[in-house]
Amino acid sequence: MLSSEAWVEAITARNVRAAARFISRIEAGDPNVTPALKELYRRGGRSRIIGITGPPGAGKSTLTGQLTKHYREHGLSVAVLAVDPSSPHSGGAILGDRLRLANHSADPGVFIRSMASRGRLGGLARAVGDTIIVLDAMRWDVVLIETVGVGQSETDIMRHTSAVILLQTAMGGDEVQAAKAGIMEIGDIFVVNKADHPEADRAVRVLEEMISLTQMLCPEKMWRPPVVKTQSLSGDGIGDLVEKISERFRFLESHPDIARANRREQVAHRVAEILRDMADRRLRESPGSEVDSMIDDAITRGTDPITIAERIFSQ
Amino acid sequence: MLSSEAWVEAITARNVRAAARFISRIEAGDPNVTPALKELYRRGGRSRIIGITGPPGAGKSTLTGQLTKHYREHGLSVAVLAVDPSSPHSGGAILGDRLRLANHSADPGVFIRSMASRGRLGGLARAVGDTIIVLDAMRWDVVLIETVGVGQSETDIMRHTSAVILLQTAMGGDEVQAAKAGIMEIGDIFVVNKADHPEADRAVRVLEEMISLTQMLCPEKMWRPPVVKTQSLSGDGIGDLVEKISERFRFLESHPDIARANRREQVAHRVAEILRDMADRRLRESPGSEVDSMIDDAITRGTDPITIAERIFSQ
Repeated sequence: MLSSEAWVEAITARNVRAAARFISRIEAGDPNVTPALKELYRRGGRSRIIGITGPPGAGKSTLTGQLTKHYREHGLSVAVLAVDPSSPHSGGAILGDRLRLANHSADPGVFIRSMASRGRLGGLARAVGDTIIVLDAMRWDVVLIETVGVGQSETDIMRHTSAVILLQTAMGGDEVQAAKAGIMEIGDIFVVNKADHPEADRAVRVLEEMISLTQMLCPEKMWRPPVVKTQSLSGDGIGDLVEKISERFRFLESHPDIARANRREQVAHRVAEILRDMADRRLRESPGSEVDSMIDDAITRGTDPITIAERIFSQ
Repeated sequence: MLSSEAWVEAITARNVRAAARFISRIEAGDPNVTPALKELYRRGGRSRIIGITGPPGAGKSTLTGQLTKHYREHGLSVAVLAVDPSSPHSGGAILGDRLRLANHSADPGVFIRSMASRGRLGGLARAVGDTIIVLDAMRWDVVLIETVGVGQSETDIMRHTSAVILLQTAMGGDEVQAAKAGIMEIGDIFVVNKADHPEADRAVRVLEEMISLTQMLCPEKMWRPPVVKTQSLSGDGIGDLVEKISERFRFLESHPDIARANRREQVAHRVAEILRDMADRRLRESPGSEVDSMIDDAITRGTDPITIAERIFSQ
């Protein structure tokens, strides 16, 4: 059992075995990681944290593999965190097609980790946020956070990143609808993958139109999300995408006010997430028998869930 | 401004205008609804709460419309809550194709409400849970909760119901993958919609296989989810589906131990959700300037989000 200081020292020295073990403790919900995490946060802030998201089957894993390869060829170190909120398997498990990243397994400039739902509401996003603190403190040049899913969990995970790549396949009407609502707003760069699909150009056009509309409605948004066509299997368009990612970070550097506003929002979101986790812990740490008997009482309508929550919260 | 007693009286008397106004207050996050909600919970427990979920484009709204029609023809009163976690629009807005339900608008035996994301993490599921308390206290015979989305928010919403109908379209490999992971476990009844699709029978077969596997792995699960083929546009198979829903409720009645375990889980989940909401409230009610200056400090790495959360939580 290492001390917090020893964990911090090992992790900031980029000891990947220590980091992997520490991340497993984060995943397990071990409260003893807290002191080290606080210190690791204070040591961080240097990595470029990039999110990659989109619907199932859009080609996220393959694209993540291509980006990793590209960055490695340009001498940058890369950490990949693959998050699957819909899977119960974590850690060493194969998520999506992790195999495509396997050829980096002997490369000390690449760190790959997968993380899955622990079946607890809110818990996954918190664990991802904590893991990003670890990766950031290890000073990987690039940290890629890949996640599948549509909706809240995806949005929550992407909020931990500074550049969100939103992947789309050439698509029919329904998917466009899904892209319009909600998810649109989190994308900093749009990628239409499977560029050889007959519908690809139409998908690009639809996205461009939606972006133009957004820019018109929200002129205060200084960053106009570019749309890039890729073919993640062959690697076509990856250079283009990397250039757009660099542009995104140059934009944040040249607009410190916007970068700062984004950071504030990220930190505020993290604080809210941690607070929620504390509420969860308070429930877990309440005497089980007491909670059980209150729940039994609620089933027969003698009490109600709000009253139970109030009692636990004020304990 | 009504008193809590007056709200409870109006809602339990099935005053739909009062209920609609009260639900709007729930959506707005008004803390003053709490005393009435507690009492409404204690008055409830009579409605059959049914969840309907599945990927975008699977035909959930149309199926909901068909179920509503069927129940009405059999003299049952129906409340419909359509939830769209990916949309920012709520209340009177048209979600999906609400229009298909419009022919019930003059029918006092039908209540239709839509609800969308309020952009707050966790907030939507809590608002849905509270709204179900209202609908249950109004004693609609059937309460249909329809939601789109894949992943956590959908699962959280479905946890408020006693019978979950999981809709699938005839589908390709990716969708089957998505169905396998995570979502599978929440379905009590599987529906393959668009039954005339050439892939429909294959989809039924794949689902049956997955269900058999689940039953084999978890023999303690007494309920074996049936698979129903429907054609929601024409209404084919709806009678079959309704019969399976009735079977589900008969099963719960004849297995009080399982029903009770489900209820315990539902209440425990609700308590956790409300606790998290309380944590959110504590953050919102903290002096803004104080939180802001702590966040600024975190951006320059002088403090960290965990320390900030600890300070707010212990206030």
